Amino acid sequence: MNITLKQAQDVILAAKEKAIALNTKMNITVVDSGANLVAFARMDEAVLGAIDISLKKAKTAILFKKDTEVLGQLSQPGSALFNIEHSNGGLITFAGGMPIHNLKGNIIGAIGISGSSVANDKAVAGAGILAIKAP
Amino acid sequence: MNITLKQAQDVILAAKEKAIALNTKMNITVVDSGANLVAFARMDEAVLGAIDISLKKAKTAILFKKDTEVLGQLSQPGSALFNIEHSNGGLITFAGGMPIHNLKGNIIGAIGISGSSVANDKAVAGAGILAIKAP
Amino acid sequence: MNITLKQAQDVILAAKEKAIALNTKMNITVVDSGANLVAFARMDEAVLGAIDISLKKAKTAILFKKDTEVLGQLSQPGSALFNIEHSNGGLITFAGGMPIHNLKGNIIGAIGISGSSVANDKAVAGAGILAIKAP
Amino acid sequence: MNITLKQAQDVILAAKEKAIALNTKMNITVVDSGANLVAFARMDEAVLGAIDISLKKAKTAILFKKDTEVLGQLSQPGSALFNIEHSNGGLITFAGGMPIHNLKGNIIGAIGISGSSVANDKAVAGAGILAIKAP
Repeated sequence: MNITLKQAQDVILAAKEKAIALNTKMNITVVDSGANLVAFARMDEAVLGAIDISLKKAKTAILFKKDTEVLGQLSQPGSALFNIEHSNGGLITFAGGMPIHNLKGNIIGAIGISGSSVANDKAVAGAGILAIKAP
Repeated sequence: MNITLKQAQDVILAAKEKAIALNTKMNITVVDSGANLVAFARMDEAVLGAIDISLKKAKTAILFKKDTEVLGQLSQPGSALFNIEHSNGGLITFAGGMPIHNLKGNIIGAIGISGSSVANDKAVAGAGILAIKAP
Repeated sequence: MNITLKQAQDVILAAKEKAIALNTKMNITVVDSGANLVAFARMDEAVLGAIDISLKKAKTAILFKKDTEVLGQLSQPGSALFNIEHSNGGLITFAGGMPIHNLKGNIIGAIGISGSSVANDKAVAGAGILAIKAP
Repeated sequence: MNITLKQAQDVILAAKEKAIALNTKMNITVVDSGANLVAFARMDEAVLGAIDISLKKAKTAILFKKDTEVLGQLSQPGSALFNIEHSNGGLITFAGGMPIHNLKGNIIGAIGISGSSVANDKAVAGAGILAIKAP
Protein backbone atom coordinates (compact mmCIF):
# COMPACT_ATOMS: atom_id res chain seq x y z
CA MET A 1 0.00 0.00 0.00
CA ASN A 2 1.47 3.24 -1.19
CA ILE A 3 0.93 6.92 -0.63
CA THR A 4 -0.60 8.66 -3.67
CA LEU A 5 0.74 11.82 -5.25
CA LYS A 6 -2.38 13.64 -4.02
CA GLN A 7 -1.69 12.52 -0.45
CA ALA A 8 1.98 13.41 -0.76
CA GLN A 9 1.13 16.89 -1.96
CA ASP A 10 -1.26 17.30 0.97
CA VAL A 11 1.57 16.29 3.31
CA ILE A 12 3.90 18.81 1.69
CA LEU A 13 1.31 21.57 1.96
CA ALA A 14 0.71 20.89 5.65
CA ALA A 15 4.43 20.77 6.32
CA LYS A 16 4.99 24.01 4.45
CA GLU A 17 2.28 25.77 6.47
CA LYS A 18 3.91 24.64 9.70
CA ALA A 19 7.30 25.74 8.42
CA ILE A 20 5.90 29.20 7.66
CA ALA A 21 4.30 29.35 11.13
CA LEU A 22 7.74 28.62 12.63
CA ASN A 23 9.37 31.21 10.35
CA THR A 24 11.64 28.59 8.77
CA LYS A 25 12.66 27.60 5.21
CA MET A 26 12.41 23.85 4.76
CA ASN A 27 13.15 21.12 2.27
CA ILE A 28 10.29 18.63 2.26
CA THR A 29 10.51 15.09 0.85
CA VAL A 30 7.85 12.39 0.61
CA VAL A 31 8.76 8.84 -0.39
CA ASP A 32 6.50 5.83 -0.85
CA SER A 33 6.66 2.51 0.99
CA GLY A 34 9.33 1.31 -1.46
CA ALA A 35 11.60 4.25 -0.56
CA ASN A 36 11.02 5.85 -3.96
CA LEU A 37 10.57 9.61 -4.33
CA VAL A 38 6.95 10.74 -4.72
CA ALA A 39 7.10 14.50 -4.17
CA PHE A 40 9.55 17.17 -3.07
CA ALA A 41 9.47 20.91 -2.41
CA ARG A 42 12.24 23.30 -1.43
CA MET A 43 11.01 26.55 0.07
CA ASP A 44 12.71 29.65 -1.32
CA GLU A 45 16.00 30.43 0.45
CA ALA A 46 16.26 27.06 2.23
CA VAL A 47 19.94 26.14 2.58
CA LEU A 48 21.23 23.94 -0.24
CA GLY A 49 22.89 21.39 2.04
CA ALA A 50 19.51 20.44 3.49
CA ILE A 51 18.10 19.12 0.19
CA ASP A 52 20.01 15.88 0.46
CA ILE A 53 19.41 15.63 4.21
CA SER A 54 15.67 15.90 3.61
CA LEU A 55 15.84 13.13 0.98
CA LYS A 56 17.95 10.91 3.24
CA LYS A 57 15.73 11.41 6.29
CA ALA A 58 12.68 10.26 4.34
CA LYS A 59 14.58 7.31 2.92
CA THR A 60 15.95 6.36 6.33
CA ALA A 61 12.52 6.50 7.97
CA ILE A 62 10.92 4.18 5.44
CA LEU A 63 13.87 1.79 5.12
CA PHE A 64 13.68 1.00 8.82
CA LYS A 65 10.02 1.93 9.46
CA LYS A 66 11.14 4.17 12.32
CA ASP A 67 11.47 7.82 13.17
CA THR A 68 15.00 8.85 12.28
CA GLU A 69 15.35 10.16 15.81
CA VAL A 70 14.93 6.64 17.20
CA LEU A 71 17.65 5.33 14.91
CA GLY A 72 19.85 8.21 16.02
CA GLN A 73 19.67 7.03 19.60
CA LEU A 74 20.54 3.47 18.56
CA SER A 75 23.51 4.58 16.43
CA GLN A 76 25.45 6.50 19.06
CA PRO A 77 28.97 5.29 19.94
CA GLY A 78 28.68 2.12 22.01
CA SER A 79 25.08 1.54 20.99
CA ALA A 80 23.71 -1.35 18.98
CA LEU A 81 23.59 0.28 15.57
CA PHE A 82 26.71 2.45 15.75
CA ASN A 83 27.52 3.86 12.32
CA ILE A 84 24.54 2.32 10.56
CA GLU A 85 24.66 5.58 8.55
CA HIS A 86 27.23 3.94 6.26
CA SER A 87 24.58 1.65 4.75
CA ASN A 88 22.14 2.24 1.91
CA GLY A 89 24.14 4.96 0.24
CA GLY A 90 24.09 7.10 3.37
CA LEU A 91 21.50 7.55 6.10
CA ILE A 92 20.60 10.55 8.26
CA THR A 93 19.64 9.59 11.78
CA PHE A 94 18.67 12.74 13.59
CA ALA A 95 15.06 13.90 13.96
CA GLY A 96 12.98 15.04 11.01
CA GLY A 97 12.24 11.76 9.22
CA MET A 98 9.03 9.89 10.06
CA PRO A 99 6.94 7.09 8.56
CA ILE A 100 3.55 8.16 7.21
CA HIS A 101 0.57 6.00 8.19
CA ASN A 102 -2.88 5.86 6.62
CA LEU A 103 -5.98 5.94 8.82
CA LYS A 104 -5.87 2.16 9.23
CA GLY A 105 -2.38 2.39 10.70
CA ASN A 106 -0.50 0.99 7.70
CA ILE A 107 2.78 2.60 6.73
CA ILE A 108 2.32 4.08 3.27
CA GLY A 109 5.45 6.22 2.97
CA ALA A 110 7.68 8.61 4.88
CA ILE A 111 8.47 12.29 5.20
CA GLY A 112 11.89 13.95 5.55
CA ILE A 113 12.31 17.56 6.68
CA SER A 114 15.52 19.57 6.81
CA GLY A 115 16.40 23.25 6.87
CA SER A 116 16.23 24.54 10.44
CA SER A 117 17.02 23.34 13.95
CA VAL A 118 16.43 19.66 14.54
CA ALA A 119 13.55 20.54 16.87
CA ASN A 120 11.90 22.57 14.12
CA ASP A 121 12.55 19.87 11.53
CA LYS A 122 10.79 17.40 13.80
CA ALA A 123 7.83 19.70 14.43
CA VAL A 124 7.34 20.26 10.71
CA ALA A 125 7.57 16.54 9.94
CA GLY A 126 5.01 15.86 12.65
CA ALA A 127 2.64 18.42 11.15
CA GLY A 128 3.08 16.96 7.68
CA ILE A 129 2.11 13.40 8.52
CA LEU A 130 -1.20 14.56 10.04
CA ALA A 131 -2.43 15.58 6.57
CA ILE A 132 -3.37 12.05 5.56
CA LYS A 133 -7.16 11.71 5.35
CA ALA A 134 -7.73 8.44 3.47
CA PRO A 135 -7.86 4.99 5.04
CA MET B 1 18.23 34.44 -11.07
CA ASN B 2 16.40 31.41 -9.79
CA ILE B 3 12.98 29.86 -10.21
CA THR B 4 10.79 30.11 -7.11
CA LEU B 5 8.94 27.21 -5.52
CA LYS B 6 5.64 28.80 -6.62
CA GLN B 7 6.84 28.93 -10.22
CA ALA B 8 8.16 25.37 -10.02
CA GLN B 9 4.82 24.11 -8.72
CA ASP B 10 3.03 25.91 -11.57
CA VAL B 11 5.38 24.17 -14.01
CA ILE B 12 4.64 20.80 -12.44
CA LEU B 13 0.89 21.40 -12.57
CA ALA B 14 0.99 22.34 -16.25
CA ALA B 15 3.16 19.33 -17.05
CA LYS B 16 0.84 17.03 -15.14
CA GLU B 17 -2.21 18.31 -17.02
CA LYS B 18 -0.48 17.67 -20.32
CA ALA B 19 0.54 14.19 -19.14
CA ILE B 20 -3.07 13.42 -18.27
CA ALA B 21 -4.21 14.71 -21.66
CA LEU B 22 -1.74 12.29 -23.28
CA ASN B 23 -2.90 9.46 -21.00
CA THR B 24 0.60 9.01 -19.56
CA LYS B 25 2.13 8.69 -16.07
CA MET B 26 5.11 10.98 -15.68
CA ASN B 27 7.90 11.86 -13.27
CA ILE B 28 8.35 15.63 -13.23
CA THR B 29 11.46 17.39 -11.88
CA VAL B 30 12.23 21.09 -11.60
CA VAL B 31 15.74 22.31 -10.69
CA ASP B 32 17.01 25.86 -10.21
CA SER B 33 19.75 27.59 -12.20
CA GLY B 34 22.38 25.97 -9.93
CA ALA B 35 21.11 22.47 -10.76
CA ASN B 36 19.60 22.06 -7.29
CA LEU B 37 16.23 20.33 -6.83
CA VAL B 38 13.29 22.68 -6.27
CA ALA B 39 10.23 20.47 -6.78
CA PHE B 40 9.34 16.97 -7.91
CA ALA B 41 6.17 14.96 -8.49
CA ARG B 42 5.69 11.35 -9.53
CA MET B 43 2.25 10.57 -10.90
CA ASP B 44 0.65 7.42 -9.50
CA GLU B 45 1.79 4.27 -11.35
CA ALA B 46 4.65 6.00 -13.18
CA VAL B 47 7.49 3.50 -13.66
CA LEU B 48 10.14 3.63 -10.96
CA GLY B 49 13.10 3.64 -13.33
CA ALA B 50 11.99 6.97 -14.72
CA ILE B 51 12.42 8.84 -11.42
CA ASP B 52 16.17 9.09 -11.81
CA ILE B 53 15.88 9.77 -15.56
CA SER B 54 13.60 12.70 -14.81
CA LEU B 55 16.08 14.07 -12.25
CA LYS B 56 19.03 13.61 -14.63
CA LYS B 57 17.24 15.22 -17.59
CA ALA B 58 16.55 18.36 -15.57
CA LYS B 59 20.13 18.44 -14.29
CA THR B 60 21.55 17.90 -17.78
CA ALA B 61 19.42 20.68 -19.29
CA ILE B 62 20.57 23.26 -16.74
CA LEU B 63 24.22 22.18 -16.59
CA PHE B 64 24.62 22.81 -20.31
CA LYS B 65 21.80 25.34 -20.82
CA LYS B 66 20.44 23.20 -23.65
CA ASP B 67 17.55 20.88 -24.42
CA THR B 68 18.71 17.37 -23.62
CA GLU B 69 17.66 16.40 -27.14
CA VAL B 70 20.31 18.71 -28.61
CA LEU B 71 23.01 17.16 -26.46
CA GLY B 72 21.79 13.75 -27.58
CA GLN B 73 22.46 14.61 -31.20
CA LEU B 74 25.95 15.87 -30.32
CA SER B 75 26.81 12.77 -28.27
CA GLN B 76 26.14 10.10 -30.88
CA PRO B 77 29.01 7.77 -31.88
CA GLY B 78 31.37 9.74 -34.08
CA SER B 79 29.97 13.10 -32.97
CA ALA B 80 31.74 15.80 -31.01
CA LEU B 81 30.47 14.97 -27.53
CA PHE B 82 30.34 11.16 -27.70
CA ASN B 83 29.91 9.71 -24.22
CA ILE B 84 29.57 13.08 -22.45
CA GLU B 85 26.98 11.19 -20.37
CA HIS B 86 29.79 9.91 -18.14
CA SER B 87 30.33 13.38 -16.64
CA ASN B 88 28.60 15.07 -13.73
CA GLY B 89 27.53 11.86 -12.02
CA GLY B 90 25.59 10.70 -15.08
CA LEU B 91 23.66 12.65 -17.71
CA ILE B 92 20.58 11.74 -19.76
CA THR B 93 20.71 13.09 -23.29
CA PHE B 94 17.47 12.16 -24.98
CA ALA B 95 14.49 14.49 -25.20
CA GLY B 96 12.51 15.54 -22.14
CA GLY B 97 14.87 17.97 -20.40
CA MET B 98 14.59 21.69 -21.17
CA PRO B 99 15.81 24.96 -19.67
CA ILE B 100 13.09 27.14 -18.17
CA HIS B 101 13.17 30.84 -19.08
CA ASN B 102 11.41 33.72 -17.38
CA LEU B 103 9.51 36.27 -19.44
CA LYS B 104 12.68 38.33 -19.90
CA GLY B 105 14.40 35.36 -21.51
CA ASN B 106 16.74 34.53 -18.63
CA ILE B 107 17.30 30.89 -17.74
CA ILE B 108 15.94 30.37 -14.24
CA GLY B 109 15.92 26.57 -14.02
CA ALA B 110 15.10 23.43 -15.96
CA ILE B 111 12.46 20.72 -16.23
CA GLY B 112 13.01 16.98 -16.67
CA ILE B 113 10.21 14.63 -17.72
CA SER B 114 10.34 10.84 -17.92
CA GLY B 115 7.77 8.04 -17.92
CA SER B 116 6.45 7.52 -21.42
CA SER B 117 7.75 7.59 -25.00
CA VAL B 118 10.45 10.15 -25.63
CA ALA B 119 8.04 12.07 -27.86
CA ASN B 120 5.53 12.27 -25.02
CA ASP B 121 8.23 13.20 -22.53
CA LYS B 122 9.23 16.07 -24.80
CA ALA B 123 5.63 17.24 -25.26
CA VAL B 124 5.04 17.28 -21.52
CA ALA B 125 8.27 19.16 -20.85
CA GLY B 126 7.31 21.71 -23.49
CA ALA B 127 3.91 22.21 -21.85
CA GLY B 128 5.50 22.60 -18.42
CA ILE B 129 7.88 25.41 -19.30
CA LEU B 130 5.02 27.53 -20.69
CA ALA B 131 3.61 27.91 -17.17
CA ILE B 132 6.04 30.67 -16.17
CA LYS B 133 4.21 33.97 -15.79
CA ALA B 134 6.65 36.25 -13.97
CA PRO B 135 9.38 38.31 -15.63
CA MET C 1 25.59 36.79 -5.94
CA ASN C 2 28.70 34.85 -6.75
CA ILE C 3 32.42 35.24 -6.21
CA THR C 4 34.34 36.01 -9.41
CA LEU C 5 37.42 34.15 -10.59
CA LYS C 6 39.49 37.27 -9.91
CA GLN C 7 38.24 37.39 -6.31
CA ALA C 8 38.80 33.65 -5.88
CA GLN C 9 42.38 33.97 -7.10
CA ASP C 10 42.95 36.85 -4.66
CA VAL C 11 41.64 34.61 -1.87
CA ILE C 12 43.97 31.81 -2.92
CA LEU C 13 46.96 34.15 -3.05
CA ALA C 14 46.25 35.50 0.43
CA ALA C 15 45.79 31.99 1.79
CA LYS C 16 49.02 30.82 0.18
CA GLU C 17 50.98 33.70 1.70
CA LYS C 18 49.64 32.83 5.13
CA ALA C 19 50.47 29.16 4.56
CA ILE C 20 54.05 30.10 3.67
CA ALA C 21 54.29 32.32 6.77
CA LEU C 22 53.24 29.31 8.86
CA ASN C 23 55.69 27.05 7.02
CA THR C 24 52.92 24.75 5.82
CA LYS C 25 51.86 23.18 2.49
CA MET C 26 48.18 23.64 1.86
CA ASN C 27 45.42 22.67 -0.54
CA ILE C 28 43.20 25.69 -1.16
CA THR C 29 39.68 25.48 -2.64
CA VAL C 30 37.24 28.26 -3.48
CA VAL C 31 33.62 27.47 -4.43
CA ASP C 32 30.82 29.84 -5.42
CA SER C 33 27.49 30.32 -3.64
CA GLY C 34 26.06 27.30 -5.49
CA ALA C 35 28.84 25.02 -4.17
CA ASN C 36 30.50 24.85 -7.59
CA LEU C 37 34.29 24.91 -7.90
CA VAL C 38 35.76 28.27 -8.93
CA ALA C 39 39.48 27.93 -8.23
CA PHE C 40 41.90 25.52 -6.58
CA ALA C 41 45.62 25.43 -5.82
CA ARG C 42 47.74 22.72 -4.24
CA MET C 43 51.07 23.92 -2.90
CA ASP C 44 54.03 21.76 -3.85
CA GLU C 45 54.49 18.79 -1.47
CA ALA C 46 51.07 19.18 0.17
CA VAL C 47 49.78 15.74 1.17
CA LEU C 48 47.51 14.13 -1.41
CA GLY C 49 44.82 13.09 1.05
CA ALA C 50 44.13 16.73 1.83
CA ILE C 51 43.00 17.61 -1.70
CA ASP C 52 39.58 16.07 -1.19
CA ILE C 53 39.34 17.39 2.37
CA SER C 54 39.95 20.90 1.08
CA LEU C 55 37.23 20.47 -1.56
CA LYS C 56 34.77 19.03 0.97
CA LYS C 57 35.44 21.76 3.56
CA ALA C 58 34.61 24.47 1.04
CA LYS C 59 31.50 22.60 -0.08
CA THR C 60 30.37 22.01 3.50
CA ALA C 61 30.81 25.67 4.45
CA ILE C 62 28.67 26.94 1.58
CA LEU C 63 26.01 24.21 1.76
CA PHE C 64 25.21 25.16 5.34
CA LYS C 65 26.44 28.79 5.30
CA LYS C 66 28.54 28.05 8.40
CA ASP C 67 32.14 27.57 9.40
CA THR C 68 32.86 23.86 9.23
CA GLU C 69 34.10 24.09 12.80
CA VAL C 70 30.61 25.04 14.00
CA LEU C 71 29.09 22.04 12.23
CA GLY C 72 31.75 19.89 13.84
CA GLN C 73 30.59 20.89 17.29
CA LEU C 74 26.98 20.13 16.37
CA SER C 75 27.80 16.73 14.89
CA GLN C 76 29.57 15.18 17.87
CA PRO C 77 28.15 11.97 19.34
CA GLY C 78 25.03 12.86 21.29
CA SER C 79 24.69 16.25 19.59
CA ALA C 80 21.92 17.40 17.30
CA LEU C 81 23.58 16.74 13.95
CA PHE C 82 25.52 13.56 14.73
CA ASN C 83 26.74 11.95 11.52
CA ILE C 84 25.50 14.73 9.22
CA GLU C 85 28.75 14.03 7.34
CA HIS C 86 27.00 11.21 5.48
CA SER C 87 24.93 13.68 3.47
CA ASN C 88 25.75 15.52 0.26
CA GLY C 89 28.30 13.01 -0.94
CA GLY C 90 30.42 13.44 2.16
CA LEU C 91 31.06 16.46 4.38
CA ILE C 92 34.11 17.49 6.40
CA THR C 93 33.20 19.15 9.67
CA PHE C 94 36.40 20.19 11.35
CA ALA C 95 37.87 23.68 11.07
CA GLY C 96 39.23 25.04 7.81
CA GLY C 97 36.06 25.72 5.80
CA MET C 98 34.49 29.18 5.96
CA PRO C 99 31.91 31.16 4.00
CA ILE C 100 33.30 34.12 2.06
CA HIS C 101 31.40 37.40 2.38
CA ASN C 102 31.62 40.45 0.17
CA LEU C 103 31.95 43.91 1.71
CA LYS C 104 28.16 44.23 1.96
CA GLY C 105 28.01 41.09 4.10
CA ASN C 106 26.50 38.78 1.47
CA ILE C 107 27.82 35.24 1.22
CA ILE C 108 29.41 34.89 -2.22
CA GLY C 109 31.25 31.59 -1.83
CA ALA C 110 33.42 29.59 0.56
CA ILE C 111 37.02 28.57 1.15
CA GLY C 112 38.33 25.16 2.19
CA ILE C 113 41.87 24.65 3.51
CA SER C 114 43.58 21.37 4.31
CA GLY C 115 47.15 20.21 4.65
CA SER C 116 48.43 20.94 8.15
CA SER C 117 47.11 20.96 11.70
CA VAL C 118 43.49 21.95 12.03
CA ALA C 119 44.58 25.12 13.83
CA ASN C 120 46.80 26.05 10.88
CA ASP C 121 44.08 25.15 8.38
CA LYS C 122 41.75 27.52 10.21
CA ALA C 123 44.30 30.33 10.33
CA VAL C 124 44.96 30.06 6.61
CA ALA C 125 41.24 30.00 5.77
CA GLY C 126 40.75 33.07 7.92
CA ALA C 127 43.55 34.88 6.09
CA GLY C 128 42.11 33.92 2.72
CA ILE C 129 38.65 35.32 3.24
CA LEU C 130 40.07 38.75 4.14
CA ALA C 131 41.26 39.20 0.55
CA ILE C 132 37.84 40.23 -0.76
CA LYS C 133 37.86 43.92 -1.72
CA ALA C 134 34.70 44.39 -3.81
CA PRO C 135 31.23 45.09 -2.39
CA MET D 1 58.62 14.17 -12.07
CA ASN D 2 55.70 16.44 -11.36
CA ILE D 3 54.43 19.78 -12.49
CA THR D 4 54.79 22.49 -9.83
CA LEU D 5 52.03 24.83 -8.74
CA LYS D 6 53.92 27.70 -10.37
CA GLN D 7 54.02 25.84 -13.68
CA ALA D 8 50.37 24.86 -13.38
CA GLN D 9 49.38 28.48 -12.77
CA ASP D 10 51.41 29.51 -15.84
CA VAL D 11 49.52 26.89 -17.86
CA ILE D 12 46.19 28.21 -16.57
CA LEU D 13 47.15 31.79 -17.38
CA ALA D 14 48.15 30.89 -20.95
CA ALA D 15 44.97 28.88 -21.42
CA LYS D 16 42.86 31.72 -20.08
CA GLU D 17 44.46 34.22 -22.46
CA LYS D 18 43.72 31.93 -25.39
CA ALA D 19 40.15 31.46 -24.18
CA ILE D 20 39.70 35.23 -24.05
CA ALA D 21 41.16 35.58 -27.55
CA LEU D 22 38.57 33.05 -28.76
CA ASN D 23 35.80 34.86 -26.86
CA THR D 24 34.99 31.75 -24.80
CA LYS D 25 34.43 30.98 -21.10
CA MET D 26 36.44 27.95 -20.06
CA ASN D 27 37.01 25.63 -17.12
CA ILE D 28 40.71 24.87 -16.83
CA THR D 29 42.15 21.95 -14.86
CA VAL D 30 45.78 20.95 -14.30
CA VAL D 31 46.65 17.59 -12.71
CA ASP D 32 50.06 16.17 -11.89
CA SER D 33 51.61 12.94 -13.16
CA GLY D 34 49.74 11.02 -10.46
CA ALA D 35 46.36 12.31 -11.70
CA ASN D 36 45.97 14.50 -8.63
CA LEU D 37 44.54 18.01 -8.89
CA VAL D 38 47.14 20.81 -8.83
CA ALA D 39 45.22 23.88 -9.97
CA PHE D 40 41.85 24.83 -11.39
CA ALA D 41 40.14 27.98 -12.63
CA ARG D 42 36.60 28.54 -13.88
CA MET D 43 36.17 31.69 -15.92
CA ASP D 44 33.12 33.77 -14.98
CA GLU D 45 29.94 32.56 -16.71
CA ALA D 46 31.42 29.25 -17.91
CA VAL D 47 28.65 26.63 -17.97
CA LEU D 48 28.45 24.57 -14.78
CA GLY D 49 28.34 21.20 -16.56
CA ALA D 50 31.81 21.79 -17.97
CA ILE D 51 33.54 21.85 -14.56
CA ASP D 52 33.44 18.09 -14.23
CA ILE D 53 34.25 17.56 -17.91
CA SER D 54 37.36 19.71 -17.50
CA LEU D 55 38.43 17.67 -14.47
CA LYS D 56 37.76 14.37 -16.25
CA LYS D 57 39.59 15.38 -19.43
CA ALA D 58 42.74 16.18 -17.46
CA LYS D 59 42.43 12.95 -15.51
CA THR D 60 41.83 10.91 -18.66
CA ALA D 61 44.83 12.44 -20.44
CA ILE D 62 47.25 11.60 -17.63
CA LEU D 63 45.80 8.18 -16.82
CA PHE D 64 46.50 7.01 -20.35
CA LYS D 65 49.29 9.48 -21.28
CA LYS D 66 47.36 10.40 -24.40
CA ASP D 67 45.34 13.24 -25.82
CA THR D 68 41.72 12.58 -24.96
CA GLU D 69 40.93 12.97 -28.65
CA VAL D 70 43.04 9.90 -29.47
CA LEU D 71 41.21 7.83 -26.88
CA GLY D 72 37.94 9.07 -28.35
CA GLN D 73 38.81 7.55 -31.70
CA LEU D 74 39.73 4.26 -30.05
CA SER D 75 36.51 4.11 -28.01
CA GLN D 76 33.96 4.40 -30.84
CA PRO D 77 31.52 1.52 -31.34
CA GLY D 78 33.38 -1.40 -32.89
CA SER D 79 36.79 0.01 -31.94
CA ALA D 80 39.29 -1.50 -29.56
CA LEU D 81 38.45 0.51 -26.46
CA PHE D 82 34.69 0.85 -26.86
CA ASN D 83 33.15 2.24 -23.67
CA ILE D 84 36.43 2.63 -21.81
CA GLU D 85 34.68 5.69 -20.35
CA HIS D 86 33.13 3.43 -17.71
CA SER D 87 36.48 2.96 -15.97
CA ASN D 88 38.22 5.11 -13.38
CA GLY D 89 35.08 6.76 -12.08
CA GLY D 90 34.23 8.12 -15.52
CA LEU D 91 36.41 9.30 -18.40
CA ILE D 92 35.83 11.97 -21.05
CA THR D 93 37.30 11.05 -24.40
CA PHE D 94 36.69 13.94 -26.73
CA ALA D 95 39.29 16.62 -27.44
CA GLY D 96 40.44 19.09 -24.79
CA GLY D 97 42.59 16.91 -22.52
CA MET D 98 46.34 16.70 -23.18
CA PRO D 99 49.45 15.55 -21.35
CA ILE D 100 51.85 18.31 -20.32
CA HIS D 101 55.55 17.74 -21.07
CA ASN D 102 58.55 19.54 -19.65
CA LEU D 103 61.33 20.77 -21.95
CA LYS D 104 63.07 17.40 -21.74
CA GLY D 105 59.98 15.67 -23.09
CA ASN D 106 58.88 14.03 -19.84
CA ILE D 107 55.20 13.97 -19.00
CA ILE D 108 54.75 16.03 -15.82
CA GLY D 109 50.96 16.40 -15.76
CA ALA D 110 47.93 17.09 -17.93
CA ILE D 111 45.48 19.83 -18.80
CA GLY D 112 41.73 19.54 -19.28
CA ILE D 113 39.65 22.26 -20.94
CA SER D 114 35.87 22.42 -21.27
CA GLY D 115 33.31 25.15 -21.89
CA SER D 116 33.00 25.80 -25.61
CA SER D 117 33.03 23.81 -28.86
CA VAL D 118 35.35 20.83 -28.85
CA ALA D 119 37.54 22.61 -31.43
CA ASN D 120 37.90 25.60 -29.10
CA ASP D 121 38.52 23.37 -26.09
CA LYS D 122 41.34 21.71 -28.01
CA ALA D 123 42.85 25.04 -29.12
CA VAL D 124 42.86 26.34 -25.55
CA ALA D 125 44.42 23.15 -24.18
CA GLY D 126 47.10 23.38 -26.85
CA ALA D 127 47.87 26.95 -25.88
CA GLY D 128 48.05 26.04 -22.20
CA ILE D 129 50.64 23.32 -22.50
CA LEU D 130 53.05 25.66 -24.32
CA ALA D 131 53.47 27.70 -21.14
CA ILE D 132 55.97 25.28 -19.60
CA LYS D 133 59.44 26.85 -19.50
CA ALA D 134 61.42 24.63 -17.13
CA PRO D 135 63.29 21.49 -18.17
